Amino acid sequence: MLFSENFEKLIQTLNRFPGIGRKTAQRLAWFMVSQDKNFALNLAETIITTVESFKTCSKCNMLSESDPCPYCTSVERLDSHLCVVENSSDIQILEGMNEYKGRYFVLGHLLSPLDGYGPEQINSQQLMERILTLHPTEIILALKPSAEGEATIHYLWELLKDKEINITRLSTGIPFGGDLEYSNLNTLSNAWKRRYIVQ
Amino acid sequence: MLFSENFEKLIQTLNRFPGIGRKTAQRLAWFMVSQDKNFALNLAETIITTVESFKTCSKCNMLSESDPCPYCTSVERLDSHLCVVENSSDIQILEGMNEYKGRYFVLGHLLSPLDGYGPEQINSQQLMERILTLHPTEIILALKPSAEGEATIHYLWELLKDKEINITRLSTGIPFGGDLEYSNLNTLSNAWKRRYIVQ
Repeated sequence: MLFSENFEKLIQTLNRFPGIGRKTAQRLAWFMVSQDKNFALNLAETIITTVESFKTCSKCNMLSESDPCPYCTSVERLDSHLCVVENSSDIQILEGMNEYKGRYFVLGHLLSPLDGYGPEQINSQQLMERILTLHPTEIILALKPSAEGEATIHYLWELLKDKEINITRLSTGIPFGGDLEYSNLNTLSNAWKRRYIVQ
Repeated sequence: MLFSENFEKLIQTLNRFPGIGRKTAQRLAWFMVSQDKNFALNLAETIITTVESFKTCSKCNMLSESDPCPYCTSVERLDSHLCVVENSSDIQILEGMNEYKGRYFVLGHLLSPLDGYGPEQINSQQLMERILTLHPTEIILALKPSAEGEATIHYLWELLKDKEINITRLSTGIPFGGDLEYSNLNTLSNAWKRRYIVQ
Protein backbone atom coordinates (compact mmCIF):
# COMPACT_ATOMS: atom_id res chain seq x y z
CA MET A 1 0.00 0.00 0.00
CA LEU A 2 1.21 3.45 -0.83
CA PHE A 3 0.77 6.20 1.74
CA SER A 4 -2.22 8.49 1.32
CA GLU A 5 -1.61 11.89 -0.26
CA ASN A 6 -1.77 13.74 3.10
CA PHE A 7 0.50 11.35 4.88
CA GLU A 8 2.99 11.32 2.02
CA LYS A 9 3.00 15.14 1.99
CA LEU A 10 3.67 15.18 5.74
CA ILE A 11 6.59 12.77 5.28
CA GLN A 12 8.02 14.82 2.41
CA THR A 13 7.78 18.06 4.40
CA LEU A 14 9.53 16.52 7.41
CA ASN A 15 12.14 15.07 5.02
CA ARG A 16 13.09 18.65 4.06
CA PHE A 17 14.50 19.37 7.54
CA PRO A 18 18.29 19.15 7.76
CA GLY A 19 19.44 15.78 9.11
CA ILE A 20 15.99 14.18 8.71
CA GLY A 21 16.09 11.39 6.15
CA ARG A 22 13.10 9.66 4.61
CA LYS A 23 13.11 6.91 7.25
CA THR A 24 13.18 9.31 10.20
CA ALA A 25 10.48 11.42 8.54
CA GLN A 26 8.27 8.33 8.32
CA ARG A 27 8.91 7.53 11.96
CA LEU A 28 8.03 11.07 13.05
CA ALA A 29 4.85 11.06 10.93
CA TRP A 30 3.74 7.73 12.40
CA PHE A 31 4.44 9.06 15.88
CA MET A 32 2.17 12.06 15.21
CA VAL A 33 -0.78 9.99 14.03
CA SER A 34 -0.38 7.38 16.78
CA GLN A 35 -0.34 9.83 19.72
CA ASP A 36 -3.37 11.46 21.27
CA LYS A 37 -4.63 13.87 18.56
CA ASN A 38 -4.06 16.86 20.87
CA PHE A 39 -0.32 16.30 20.73
CA ALA A 40 -0.13 16.95 16.99
CA LEU A 41 -2.71 19.75 17.07
CA ASN A 42 -0.77 21.53 19.82
CA LEU A 43 2.42 21.08 17.84
CA ALA A 44 0.82 22.62 14.75
CA GLU A 45 -0.46 25.56 16.80
CA THR A 46 2.93 26.10 18.46
CA ILE A 47 4.65 26.09 15.06
CA ILE A 48 2.26 28.74 13.75
CA THR A 49 2.55 31.00 16.84
CA THR A 50 6.33 30.70 16.88
CA VAL A 51 7.10 31.36 13.23
CA GLU A 52 4.61 34.24 13.13
CA SER A 53 6.41 35.91 16.04
CA PHE A 54 9.93 35.77 14.57
CA LYS A 55 11.49 38.57 12.53
CA THR A 56 14.99 39.60 11.44
CA CYS A 57 16.81 42.13 13.64
CA SER A 58 17.51 45.22 11.52
CA LYS A 59 20.89 45.74 13.17
CA CYS A 60 22.46 42.27 13.25
CA ASN A 61 20.12 40.06 11.12
CA MET A 62 19.48 37.66 13.96
CA LEU A 63 16.08 35.93 13.99
CA SER A 64 14.34 37.26 17.06
CA GLU A 65 10.92 38.09 18.46
CA SER A 66 11.89 41.74 18.85
CA ASP A 67 13.57 44.23 16.51
CA PRO A 68 16.22 45.23 17.51
CA CYS A 69 17.05 41.89 19.12
CA PRO A 70 18.01 41.50 22.81
CA TYR A 71 21.74 41.30 21.96
CA CYS A 72 21.70 44.60 20.08
CA THR A 73 19.68 46.47 22.74
CA SER A 74 21.26 45.08 25.93
CA VAL A 75 23.31 47.75 27.74
CA GLU A 76 25.32 44.97 29.39
CA ARG A 77 26.88 43.77 26.13
CA LEU A 78 30.13 45.42 25.01
CA ASP A 79 30.42 47.35 21.73
CA SER A 80 34.16 46.61 21.77
CA HIS A 81 33.70 43.06 20.49
CA LEU A 82 31.74 42.00 17.42
CA CYS A 83 31.27 38.32 16.64
CA VAL A 84 30.36 37.43 13.04
CA VAL A 85 28.40 34.18 12.57
CA GLU A 86 26.77 32.38 9.67
CA ASN A 87 23.34 31.70 11.24
CA SER A 88 21.17 32.83 14.14
CA SER A 89 21.40 29.36 15.66
CA ASP A 90 25.20 29.75 15.93
CA ILE A 91 24.58 32.52 18.47
CA GLN A 92 22.78 30.12 20.78
CA ILE A 93 25.68 27.69 20.55
CA LEU A 94 28.25 30.38 21.37
CA GLU A 95 26.10 31.76 24.21
CA GLY A 96 26.22 28.25 25.68
CA MET A 97 29.90 28.92 26.55
CA ASN A 98 28.76 31.74 28.82
CA GLU A 99 32.00 33.51 28.00
CA TYR A 100 31.36 36.17 25.38
CA LYS A 101 29.69 39.47 26.26
CA GLY A 102 30.04 41.44 23.01
CA ARG A 103 27.71 42.03 20.05
CA TYR A 104 26.84 39.74 17.13
CA PHE A 105 26.34 39.99 13.39
CA VAL A 106 24.64 37.29 11.30
CA LEU A 107 25.83 36.95 7.67
CA GLY A 108 22.91 34.68 6.78
CA HIS A 109 25.13 32.71 4.38
CA LEU A 110 28.78 32.03 3.64
CA LEU A 111 30.42 33.32 0.47
CA SER A 112 29.82 30.86 -2.36
CA PRO A 113 29.79 32.71 -5.70
CA LEU A 114 29.04 29.57 -7.73
CA ASP A 115 25.80 29.10 -5.77
CA GLY A 116 24.91 32.78 -6.15
CA TYR A 117 26.10 33.94 -2.73
CA GLY A 118 28.38 36.90 -3.41
CA PRO A 119 29.39 39.82 -1.11
CA GLU A 120 25.89 41.34 -1.31
CA GLN A 121 24.10 38.14 -0.32
CA ILE A 122 26.22 37.80 2.83
CA ASN A 123 25.29 41.36 3.91
CA SER A 124 28.87 42.64 3.96
CA GLN A 125 27.78 46.25 3.33
CA GLN A 126 25.48 46.09 6.37
CA LEU A 127 28.37 44.61 8.38
CA MET A 128 30.58 47.57 7.46
CA GLU A 129 27.88 50.00 8.62
CA ARG A 130 27.52 48.09 11.87
CA ILE A 131 31.29 48.34 12.42
CA LEU A 132 31.18 52.10 11.82
CA THR A 133 28.52 52.46 14.51
CA LEU A 134 30.03 50.15 17.14
CA HIS A 135 33.76 50.89 16.69
CA PRO A 136 34.83 47.46 17.90
CA THR A 137 38.46 46.73 18.78
CA GLU A 138 38.10 43.07 17.89
CA ILE A 139 36.02 41.27 15.29
CA ILE A 140 35.76 37.50 15.81
CA LEU A 141 34.95 35.63 12.60
CA ALA A 142 33.26 32.59 14.17
CA LEU A 143 32.71 30.75 10.88
CA LYS A 144 33.16 27.06 10.18
CA PRO A 145 36.45 25.92 8.65
CA SER A 146 35.02 24.70 5.31
CA ALA A 147 35.87 25.89 1.79
CA GLU A 148 33.08 28.51 1.99
CA GLY A 149 34.02 29.46 5.55
CA GLU A 150 37.65 30.01 4.57
CA ALA A 151 36.63 32.05 1.51
CA THR A 152 34.37 34.21 3.68
CA ILE A 153 37.04 34.72 6.34
CA HIS A 154 39.53 35.70 3.66
CA TYR A 155 37.10 38.09 1.98
CA LEU A 156 36.12 39.82 5.24
CA TRP A 157 39.76 40.03 6.31
CA GLU A 158 40.62 41.82 3.04
CA LEU A 159 37.81 44.30 3.66
CA LEU A 160 38.84 44.96 7.27
CA LYS A 161 42.61 44.55 7.44
CA ASP A 162 43.43 48.27 7.10
CA LYS A 163 40.98 49.39 9.77
CA GLU A 164 43.20 48.87 12.85
CA ILE A 165 40.81 46.34 14.30
CA ASN A 166 42.00 42.94 15.53
CA ILE A 167 40.47 40.37 13.19
CA THR A 168 40.42 36.93 14.83
CA ARG A 169 39.01 33.50 13.97
CA LEU A 170 38.28 30.39 16.02
CA SER A 171 41.10 27.91 16.53
CA THR A 172 41.11 24.87 14.26
CA GLY A 173 42.42 21.39 15.09
CA ILE A 174 41.49 17.99 16.45
CA PRO A 175 38.25 18.28 18.46
CA PHE A 176 38.25 17.30 22.12
CA GLY A 177 37.18 13.68 22.39
CA GLY A 178 38.06 13.28 18.70
CA ASP A 179 40.23 10.45 17.54
CA LEU A 180 43.26 10.95 15.30
CA GLU A 181 42.18 7.86 13.42
CA TYR A 182 38.81 9.38 12.57
CA SER A 183 40.05 12.88 11.75
CA ASN A 184 40.08 13.69 8.07
CA LEU A 185 43.37 14.57 6.39
CA ASN A 186 42.64 18.32 6.25
CA THR A 187 41.96 18.48 9.98
CA LEU A 188 45.03 16.43 10.76
CA SER A 189 47.49 18.34 8.56
CA ASN A 190 46.06 21.64 9.80
CA ALA A 191 46.47 20.51 13.43
CA TRP A 192 50.02 19.44 12.61
CA LYS A 193 50.91 22.80 11.10
CA ARG A 194 49.33 24.66 14.01
CA ARG A 195 50.93 22.47 16.71
CA TYR A 196 52.03 24.42 19.79
CA ILE A 197 54.46 23.99 22.66
CA VAL A 198 53.03 22.28 25.74
CA GLN A 199 53.68 24.32 28.88
CA MET B 1 19.53 34.76 26.48
CA LEU B 2 16.88 32.18 27.25
CA PHE B 3 14.51 31.16 24.52
CA SER B 4 11.11 32.84 24.45
CA GLU B 5 8.18 30.88 25.87
CA ASN B 6 6.83 29.96 22.42
CA PHE B 7 10.14 28.88 21.05
CA GLU B 8 10.93 26.87 24.17
CA LYS B 9 7.52 25.16 23.94
CA LEU B 10 8.19 24.29 20.30
CA ILE B 11 11.58 22.78 21.25
CA GLN B 12 10.06 20.79 24.10
CA THR B 13 7.27 19.43 21.89
CA LEU B 14 9.75 18.32 19.21
CA ASN B 15 11.91 16.81 21.96
CA ARG B 16 9.03 14.42 22.76
CA PHE B 17 9.39 12.61 19.42
CA PRO B 18 11.26 9.31 19.64
CA GLY B 19 14.93 9.69 18.69
CA ILE B 20 14.80 13.50 18.77
CA GLY B 21 17.06 14.85 21.53
CA ARG B 22 17.10 18.40 22.83
CA LYS B 23 19.87 19.45 20.41
CA THR B 24 18.09 18.10 17.34
CA ALA B 25 14.83 19.68 18.54
CA GLN B 26 16.61 23.06 18.73
CA ARG B 27 18.01 22.59 15.24
CA LEU B 28 14.58 21.72 13.82
CA ALA B 29 12.97 24.70 15.56
CA TRP B 30 15.62 27.07 14.20
CA PHE B 31 15.12 25.61 10.74
CA MET B 32 11.38 26.34 10.95
CA VAL B 33 11.79 29.99 11.93
CA SER B 34 14.62 30.59 9.43
CA GLN B 35 12.77 29.26 6.35
CA ASP B 36 10.16 31.12 4.37
CA LYS B 37 7.15 31.38 6.74
CA ASN B 38 5.00 29.37 4.31
CA PHE B 39 7.12 26.29 4.90
CA ALA B 40 6.20 26.10 8.60
CA LEU B 41 2.59 27.16 8.04
CA ASN B 42 2.15 24.44 5.40
CA LEU B 43 3.73 21.93 7.75
CA ALA B 44 1.30 22.88 10.53
CA GLU B 45 -1.65 22.58 8.14
CA THR B 46 -0.46 19.19 6.84
CA ILE B 47 -0.09 17.91 10.41
CA ILE B 48 -3.66 18.94 11.25
CA THR B 49 -5.19 17.47 8.07
CA THR B 50 -3.26 14.23 8.45
CA VAL B 51 -3.93 13.48 12.12
CA GLU B 52 -7.59 14.44 11.73
CA SER B 53 -7.96 11.89 8.93
CA PHE B 54 -6.46 8.90 10.78
CA LYS B 55 -8.53 6.39 12.75
CA THR B 56 -8.03 2.86 14.11
CA CYS B 57 -9.22 -0.01 11.92
CA SER B 58 -11.93 -1.87 13.86
CA LYS B 59 -10.73 -5.24 12.51
CA CYS B 60 -6.93 -5.09 12.87
CA ASN B 61 -6.24 -1.90 14.92
CA MET B 62 -4.03 -0.41 12.23
CA LEU B 63 -3.99 3.38 11.99
CA SER B 64 -5.57 4.15 8.66
CA GLU B 65 -7.65 6.75 6.84
CA SER B 66 -10.43 4.24 6.28
CA ASP B 67 -12.20 1.77 8.57
CA PRO B 68 -11.81 -1.08 7.78
CA CYS B 69 -8.27 -0.44 6.54
CA PRO B 70 -7.08 -1.33 3.01
CA TYR B 71 -5.36 -4.52 4.25
CA CYS B 72 -8.55 -5.85 5.83
CA THR B 73 -10.78 -5.02 2.84
CA SER B 74 -8.48 -6.00 -0.03
CA VAL B 75 -9.73 -9.10 -1.84
CA GLU B 76 -6.19 -9.75 -3.05
CA ARG B 77 -4.83 -10.45 0.43
CA LEU B 78 -5.00 -14.02 1.74
CA ASP B 79 -6.99 -14.94 4.88
CA SER B 80 -4.71 -17.96 5.28
CA HIS B 81 -1.88 -15.89 6.79
CA LEU B 82 -2.15 -13.49 9.71
CA CYS B 83 0.84 -11.40 10.73
CA VAL B 84 0.80 -9.98 14.28
CA VAL B 85 2.81 -6.76 14.80
CA GLU B 86 3.36 -4.34 17.65
CA ASN B 87 2.65 -1.07 15.81
CA SER B 88 1.02 0.19 12.62
CA SER B 89 4.39 1.45 11.42
CA ASP B 90 5.76 -2.13 11.49
CA ILE B 91 3.30 -2.96 8.71
CA GLN B 92 4.93 -0.40 6.41
CA ILE B 93 8.33 -1.90 7.13
CA LEU B 94 7.14 -5.45 6.37
CA GLU B 95 5.31 -4.30 3.23
CA GLY B 96 8.65 -2.93 2.05
CA MET B 97 9.78 -6.57 1.52
CA ASN B 98 7.01 -6.94 -1.08
CA GLU B 99 6.77 -10.57 -0.09
CA TYR B 100 3.80 -11.03 2.24
CA LYS B 101 0.24 -11.04 0.94
CA GLY B 102 -1.73 -12.04 4.06
CA ARG B 103 -3.62 -10.06 6.68
CA TYR B 104 -2.31 -8.10 9.67
CA PHE B 105 -3.19 -7.54 13.32
CA VAL B 106 -1.76 -4.70 15.44
CA LEU B 107 -1.38 -5.42 19.16
CA GLY B 108 -0.72 -1.73 19.96
CA HIS B 109 1.72 -2.73 22.71
CA LEU B 110 3.84 -5.65 23.86
CA LEU B 111 3.02 -7.51 27.06
CA SER B 112 4.63 -5.72 30.01
CA PRO B 113 2.57 -6.34 33.19
CA LEU B 114 4.81 -4.15 35.37
CA ASP B 115 4.04 -1.15 33.13
CA GLY B 116 0.32 -1.95 33.13
CA TYR B 117 0.21 -3.75 29.77
CA GLY B 118 -1.52 -7.05 30.43
CA PRO B 119 -3.42 -9.36 28.02
CA GLU B 120 -6.33 -6.91 27.75
CA GLN B 121 -4.13 -3.95 26.81
CA ILE B 122 -2.54 -5.87 23.95
CA ASN B 123 -5.99 -6.70 22.52
CA SER B 124 -5.56 -10.46 22.72
CA GLN B 125 -9.34 -11.04 22.93
CA GLN B 126 -9.82 -9.08 19.69
CA LEU B 127 -7.01 -11.12 18.12
CA MET B 128 -8.81 -14.37 19.03
CA GLU B 129 -12.01 -13.09 17.40
CA ARG B 130 -10.08 -12.12 14.30
CA ILE B 131 -8.59 -15.61 14.12
CA LEU B 132 -12.08 -17.15 14.41
CA THR B 133 -13.22 -15.07 11.44
CA LEU B 134 -10.20 -15.55 9.19
CA HIS B 135 -9.30 -19.20 9.94
CA PRO B 136 -5.63 -18.70 9.11
CA THR B 137 -3.31 -21.67 8.67
CA GLU B 138 -0.27 -19.68 9.82
CA ILE B 139 0.11 -16.88 12.34
CA ILE B 140 3.43 -15.01 12.07
CA LEU B 141 4.38 -13.26 15.32
CA ALA B 142 6.54 -10.49 13.83
CA LEU B 143 7.54 -8.99 17.19
CA LYS B 144 10.94 -7.73 18.22
CA PRO B 145 13.22 -10.09 20.17
CA SER B 146 13.28 -8.09 23.43
CA ALA B 147 12.17 -9.15 26.93
CA GLU B 148 8.66 -7.83 26.23
CA GLY B 149 8.64 -9.29 22.73
CA GLU B 150 9.61 -12.73 24.03
CA ALA B 151 6.98 -12.54 26.79
CA THR B 152 4.32 -11.61 24.23
CA ILE B 153 5.37 -14.37 21.82
CA HIS B 154 5.26 -16.90 24.67
CA TYR B 155 1.86 -15.66 25.90
CA LEU B 156 0.27 -15.76 22.42
CA TRP B 157 1.80 -19.16 21.71
CA GLU B 158 0.20 -20.51 24.90
CA LEU B 159 -3.17 -19.14 23.78
CA LEU B 160 -2.88 -20.55 20.28
CA LYS B 161 -0.87 -23.76 20.53
CA ASP B 162 -3.90 -26.11 20.65
CA LYS B 163 -5.64 -24.58 17.66
CA GLU B 164 -3.84 -26.52 14.89
CA ILE B 165 -2.44 -23.35 13.40
CA ASN B 166 1.25 -22.97 12.58
CA ILE B 167 2.60 -20.32 14.93
CA THR B 168 5.85 -18.86 13.56
CA ARG B 169 8.18 -16.04 14.54
CA LEU B 170 10.89 -14.12 12.69
CA SER B 171 14.37 -15.59 12.66
CA THR B 172 16.80 -14.13 15.19
CA GLY B 173 20.58 -13.83 14.79
CA ILE B 174 23.40 -11.59 13.61
CA PRO B 175 21.95 -8.94 11.26
CA PHE B 176 23.27 -8.69 7.71
CA GLY B 177 26.09 -6.16 7.65
CA GLY B 178 26.37 -6.56 11.42
CA ASP B 179 29.71 -7.21 13.03
CA LEU B 180 30.29 -10.02 15.53
CA GLU B 181 32.36 -7.58 17.54
CA TYR B 182 29.41 -5.18 17.92
CA SER B 183 26.73 -7.81 18.57
CA ASN B 184 25.57 -8.00 22.16
CA LEU B 185 26.03 -11.24 24.06
CA ASN B 186 22.35 -12.23 23.81
CA THR B 187 22.36 -11.88 20.04
CA LEU B 188 25.61 -13.79 19.76
CA SER B 189 24.70 -16.72 22.01
CA ASN B 190 21.28 -16.96 20.35
CA ALA B 191 22.91 -17.01 16.91
CA TRP B 192 25.31 -19.68 18.18
CA LYS B 193 22.50 -21.88 19.46
CA ARG B 194 20.52 -21.42 16.25
CA ARG B 195 23.50 -22.06 13.96
CA TYR B 196 22.63 -24.06 10.84
CA ILE B 197 24.42 -26.20 8.28
CA VAL B 198 25.69 -24.35 5.23
CA GLN B 199 24.55 -25.99 2.03
